[in-house]
Amino acid sequence: MSVVEILRDEDLSPEARAVFDDIRAARGGDFVNNFWRVLAHDAVLLKRVWETLKATMAPGALDPLTKELLYVAVSATNGCEYCVRSHTAAARAKGMTEAQLMEVMAVVGMANQTNSLAMATQVPVDEVFLRPPKS
Amino acid sequence: MSVVEILRDEDLSPEARAVFDDIRAARGGDFVNNFWRVLAHDAVLLKRVWETLKATMAPGALDPLTKELLYVAVSATNGCEYCVRSHTAAARAKGMTEAQLMEVMAVVGMANQTNSLAMATQVPVDEVFLRPPKS
Amino acid sequence: MSVVEILRDEDLSPEARAVFDDIRAARGGDFVNNFWRVLAHDAVLLKRVWETLKATMAPGALDPLTKELLYVAVSATNGCEYCVRSHTAAARAKGMTEAQLMEVMAVVGMANQTNSLAMATQVPVDEVFLRPPKS
Amino acid sequence: MSVVEILRDEDLSPEARAVFDDIRAARGGDFVNNFWRVLAHDAVLLKRVWETLKATMAPGALDPLTKELLYVAVSATNGCEYCVRSHTAAARAKGMTEAQLMEVMAVVGMANQTNSLAMATQVPVDEVFLRPPKS
Amino acid sequence: MSVVEILRDEDLSPEARAVFDDIRAARGGDFVNNFWRVLAHDAVLLKRVWETLKATMAPGALDPLTKELLYVAVSATNGCEYCVRSHTAAARAKGMTEAQLMEVMAVVGMANQTNSLAMATQVPVDEVFLRPPKS
Amino acid sequence: MSVVEILRDEDLSPEARAVFDDIRAARGGDFVNNFWRVLAHDAVLLKRVWETLKATMAPGALDPLTKELLYVAVSATNGCEYCVRSHTAAARAKGMTEAQLMEVMAVVGMANQTNSLAMATQVPVDEVFLRPPKS
Repeated sequence: MSVVEILRDEDLSPEARAVFDDIRAARGGDFVNNFWRVLAHDAVLLKRVWETLKATMAPGALDPLTKELLYVAVSATNGCEYCVRSHTAAARAKGMTEAQLMEVMAVVGMANQTNSLAMATQVPVDEVFLRPPKS
Repeated sequence: MSVVEILRDEDLSPEARAVFDDIRAARGGDFVNNFWRVLAHDAVLLKRVWETLKATMAPGALDPLTKELLYVAVSATNGCEYCVRSHTAAARAKGMTEAQLMEVMAVVGMANQTNSLAMATQVPVDEVFLRPPKS
Repeated sequence: MSVVEILRDEDLSPEARAVFDDIRAARGGDFVNNFWRVLAHDAVLLKRVWETLKATMAPGALDPLTKELLYVAVSATNGCEYCVRSHTAAARAKGMTEAQLMEVMAVVGMANQTNSLAMATQVPVDEVFLRPPKS
Repeated sequence: MSVVEILRDEDLSPEARAVFDDIRAARGGDFVNNFWRVLAHDAVLLKRVWETLKATMAPGALDPLTKELLYVAVSATNGCEYCVRSHTAAARAKGMTEAQLMEVMAVVGMANQTNSLAMATQVPVDEVFLRPPKS
Repeated sequence: MSVVEILRDEDLSPEARAVFDDIRAARGGDFVNNFWRVLAHDAVLLKRVWETLKATMAPGALDPLTKELLYVAVSATNGCEYCVRSHTAAARAKGMTEAQLMEVMAVVGMANQTNSLAMATQVPVDEVFLRPPKS
Repeated sequence: MSVVEILRDEDLSPEARAVFDDIRAARGGDFVNNFWRVLAHDAVLLKRVWETLKATMAPGALDPLTKELLYVAVSATNGCEYCVRSHTAAARAKGMTEAQLMEVMAVVGMANQTNSLAMATQVPVDEVFLRPPKS
């Protein structure tokens, strides 16, 4: 049970249905997962989040799989079960191997460890890290 | 000012100096950043964190640049300034372009947004995301 | 199952029972939710948390509904399921509409997104934001 | 120093300049804060974040001041200095009194306290909080 | 610069001054740190937080030093610089050695690492950990 | 269901089995909890995390129970259910009383409250807290 009802296709406003049509077209399948079915209570929010996600995850300077791995890393750090599971599934669908998943986990674990060590020590940033990148 | 003194080379115990030697050998340069200089108060901890980091970030199923991008994503999510700055610098040193950095940021922003939406709605995980991966 | 037993009314110490009496009087009903039933293992902690909560959420410069919305926003950001669900229920009881809930979520999502962007970029605070408020 | 350069007006691409024009029009002033000047390295991201923020914070089921207070609460919870300072300033500009700010803080402190207590005890959600809202 | 003014002794309301008197009496010295000087804008909040802190940190089933170490661990995890620094100082004043501080850091780093690994894998809780404690 | 399969003893690689043997020897029992059974997909990661954990939690400048309490405090702050439950169980096995657990919770709640208050106010660190410790 979500804190709002999970909408079925027949519950959708015309605006929400149009977004679902686009989700289905983009993914080439009929399945629309629960995340969109709760956002569909607010068609404007639904449309905004979907379109932003689609644009953000499209191929660009980074490939789609790398973007999914980043998504998994953030979701694990935040402890969001829904996001960990859905984006791990998405990463697998985009070709992530089990060995790659284990390495994502190792880096996530390591980063969370050294993040907390740097925050515990309040170590000042080295001058060299404050310089702007060479152009 | 860190909460513990930032140790200079001449302050190091022999055990800590051996780790610094290895850091310098691995990186091919003399510079050792402040993070290691605070951990050096406990040579056992220093050695453990350094060796784990070196092993975790080595090439494997994921390339070193991808691993640095994951590190940046976690550090930004945790709000660790030291880690954001040092790993952004490390990613640049491994070839990250500015366009790639902006895309990492876009994914990190998006993931933090949808993570909080999923946690705010407490949307249940779809059955399909709970199935084990096909082997 | 909680990590400590959920105490029934008949398990309560006299001090804890007095707090439960006050909870019931303040809320005008017999129901006492599980959160208080776990804190009741330590009657001093129970009393302190309850009295602080009651004082904090009372009408003041902000109305009680606005305070509940703030509570929901923090709880979603922390990913605390219990708190998201109980304070969403409390907000509804205080008159929150479903449209308002969707807007809370939109702001929470947006804030988490730009928070992580600001932390990823380590953008310095503009001078104007550092000035004390005009009195 | 941000991890990317803070762009001045004369550094902007035409697409980024168009967004800055819209920010200035929406706010009725010439000042554009640093957050937008770092996002401006990626005009597509800049435009997306700005337009989403503008839409999210517009009057709706919640008034703009309430939305700013929610933003402050999330930013404080995440420990994002830039966001705390800029949105506290924005809330003051929208009429927040100092008494209201102190009450936001009190609620944020309380919510972070009980969130961690609920997570420490792993208290199960009461049945009544799992029921869908009455329609 | 805090987001609210740091109050000097001569700025205090009589109610806030009474709390400062109690802080000074409890600590046996004249120094009152900035945290209380910002809370002093709301004497009710100031009094509540101070009295709760005093009660929470008093000797009980745990000694005061252990409580300070727990405070440091939480503060490091949240990345709160003010809290890390003030509670590290407090722990030293209560007898914490530098070797103990390094061990606190090692545990904090380890816990943040395995926390993120458990959240990344979404590993189910073993039955044995769900059983109530033996009484 | 974890995002990767929970490995049974008969699924283990020889390298992973060797680590399980060491876990069993260290703990003096046959039970190996699920956390290790998911890490076992990557024997190198499994070995590294186990050996680091064993070394970190060993008696040193802090006793093992104090270390477990710190672990519980961090895990509660991060909202990691698996870690809260497993380390609460471990702390009980090392002698933690129920009264001590309630005090850990009180400190964790208090620390999360004042952490968010310090981050909400952006109170500057007092000079005295920035001074290096007396040697």
